Amino acid sequence: MKLNEIKTPSLIIDRQRLVKNCNYMSNRMRKFGVDLRPHLKTAKSFEIAKIATNGHFGGITVSTLAEASYFLANGITDITYAVGISPDKLEEVSDLLDKGARVRVITDNLAVVPVLQEKCASLKANMNVLIEIDTGGLRGGINPESEELVDLAKAIEQANNLNLDGVLTHAGHSYECDNIDSIRLVADNERSGVVKAAEILRKQGISCDVVSAGSTPTAVFVENLDGITEMRPGAYMFFDLDQVGMGVCKIDDIAVTVLATVIGHKKDPQRLLIDAGSLALSKDLSANQFMDNVGYGLVCRADNCSVIPGLYVERTYQEHGLIASISGPIEFDSFPIGTKVRILPNHTCITSAAHDKYYVLDNNMVAETWDRVNGW
Amino acid sequence: MKLNEIKTPSLIIDRQRLVKNCNYMSNRMRKFGVDLRPHLKTAKSFEIAKIATNGHFGGITVSTLAEASYFLANGITDITYAVGISPDKLEEVSDLLDKGARVRVITDNLAVVPVLQEKCASLKANMNVLIEIDTGGLRGGINPESEELVDLAKAIEQANNLNLDGVLTHAGHSYECDNIDSIRLVADNERSGVVKAAEILRKQGISCDVVSAGSTPTAVFVENLDGITEMRPGAYMFFDLDQVGMGVCKIDDIAVTVLATVIGHKKDPQRLLIDAGSLALSKDLSANQFMDNVGYGLVCRADNCSVIPGLYVERTYQEHGLIASISGPIEFDSFPIGTKVRILPNHTCITSAAHDKYYVLDNNMVAETWDRVNGW
Repeated sequence: MKLNEIKTPSLIIDRQRLVKNCNYMSNRMRKFGVDLRPHLKTAKSFEIAKIATNGHFGGITVSTLAEASYFLANGITDITYAVGISPDKLEEVSDLLDKGARVRVITDNLAVVPVLQEKCASLKANMNVLIEIDTGGLRGGINPESEELVDLAKAIEQANNLNLDGVLTHAGHSYECDNIDSIRLVADNERSGVVKAAEILRKQGISCDVVSAGSTPTAVFVENLDGITEMRPGAYMFFDLDQVGMGVCKIDDIAVTVLATVIGHKKDPQRLLIDAGSLALSKDLSANQFMDNVGYGLVCRADNCSVIPGLYVERTYQEHGLIASISGPIEFDSFPIGTKVRILPNHTCITSAAHDKYYVLDNNMVAETWDRVNGW
Repeated sequence: MKLNEIKTPSLIIDRQRLVKNCNYMSNRMRKFGVDLRPHLKTAKSFEIAKIATNGHFGGITVSTLAEASYFLANGITDITYAVGISPDKLEEVSDLLDKGARVRVITDNLAVVPVLQEKCASLKANMNVLIEIDTGGLRGGINPESEELVDLAKAIEQANNLNLDGVLTHAGHSYECDNIDSIRLVADNERSGVVKAAEILRKQGISCDVVSAGSTPTAVFVENLDGITEMRPGAYMFFDLDQVGMGVCKIDDIAVTVLATVIGHKKDPQRLLIDAGSLALSKDLSANQFMDNVGYGLVCRADNCSVIPGLYVERTYQEHGLIASISGPIEFDSFPIGTKVRILPNHTCITSAAHDKYYVLDNNMVAETWDRVNGW
């Protein structure tokens, strides 16, 4: 199929860009001698997981148990579920273990350990646990130098059905940096913080095999990964405008776009209407923190994905997008009703999640679709 | 099932509130002698469509052809697709007609009429068309007093395979009002504008059976619907915090919440982590235009849906929400890991779209689930 034969709105993935991005990160991590455990929360696709794990050990990171179950059904067994575990989710994890998965869960909470232990005992499950470390993100995790770290590690070690595998951190605040130096600083703190946690535990005689870190910005710019055993970036597979604004990638690296159709001409005020709105593009505005006139995404020609100068999605409604121009009047005759355009997303993880499949663009033709595992 | 036995994050619908909201709008439109053609873009559910159309003629409005196809498969045949039609979508509409649907499409573009006509001829389809009128929303539609209106109507009338059924408007800008008087003014303009368009056409000898209007805020506060044949509100079925902020509903009218689990305690800064983030709640911030300290939603007790004073979802990540307090320190002991909470959504249409089903809460028990038709 050609692009203009595809229903809109729809999610298009450029296979060449995807493969290039995946090879880049894979090679970069190999040069550091660090395992790449790609985060599949962005891609949510087994076809993409195959490309992303190529050349590494095959383990992945997930953000939902729906992802874990889907990837296991497709033959991926080494899975880290990198969202703080709560006792009510253990039954589902236990089912995955019974089906042959090797799942690691994470926690940062001492009080929950006896509850996890009791639940695992009742499920007759042995759970591999990583301690979540906060290296500046102020989301989940405990400070590597807090006394709680050792207490938590000992509690996990002593719990019958829990095995302490190591420590994990995510420098999510790297997404707030607007220059490479500040990303490098965050990356250095991410590394040193989680490595310090591992060292503190080892000094107490507590083994700590896994020292896991990573976000896309820090993985792209980090200069030293001493002491890290694995990195878990994910958004690099697709990149997006937010990362362009940060300087993490170039606009031509963005592998995912939303294909849309021009459905209206609003002459006063001058706007093009497209059939991609709040649902197809998401309400994410992240790239606007770094760039002007991005709105809900930049507008590209459908055929070659080149940015159409001056056009951006200014506003969205549920199924409508309003495209405005910052470079003079819109030439409506160039965009008759039915014209296809492609929208570069602000935040690829959120935009992609509205779509249940990818149309795979390969040398300007769509030969196949890849499914996605949305939901929970 | 009890609420605390349900996987999180998940979408909960309170059946009593839903039925009350639907009955309210149904009765209100009957008092005006106006047909209710509820917009199902919010609910996307046949079970809810049955409740919403009860007492009226059974026709509905949809925002996607996926909705049209789903509702037709469930026996609803009278469907208005209220997003500007583009020629590439006619084949799918034609399939719906062949299966017994009576679909109306909308346009506001004179130049597209010959293209629609040609496509319909090649499909051997007769298409019922409404002209979209702009009554102040500045999104789609033409000004009722513009010369283009009559030209467009005549072009549709004269096209062999197109039938002009009437005019349609949507005062989407009613969502920007922060008081009842301004909503009433928008409602009055919505009515008078679309009725004027109908009168202009009739004066030209052009028949105009359908005069269609409606948004939830205008349908709730309008005082005069003279000349209107049908209203198309949709969000009233669920309501949301945005509409609370506008004064359209009370907080206890909100029928849809996101059930979430506490998965972390961040002591410094004081935050509760929940497993509902940007995907489960959406990135929509609309209610913040009217109310302070709403963030991505207010936090309720799971058991009785009462708002927990001072708590709100301050920040979201893909699968994490960070709850902050504006009323002193968080009592972490009251929220052990695993505690369920319910989040009131800012914008119910967007939040609901992340979920593939509703858990139906009926007198505090969940006895069934209802499916939703997401995507396109």
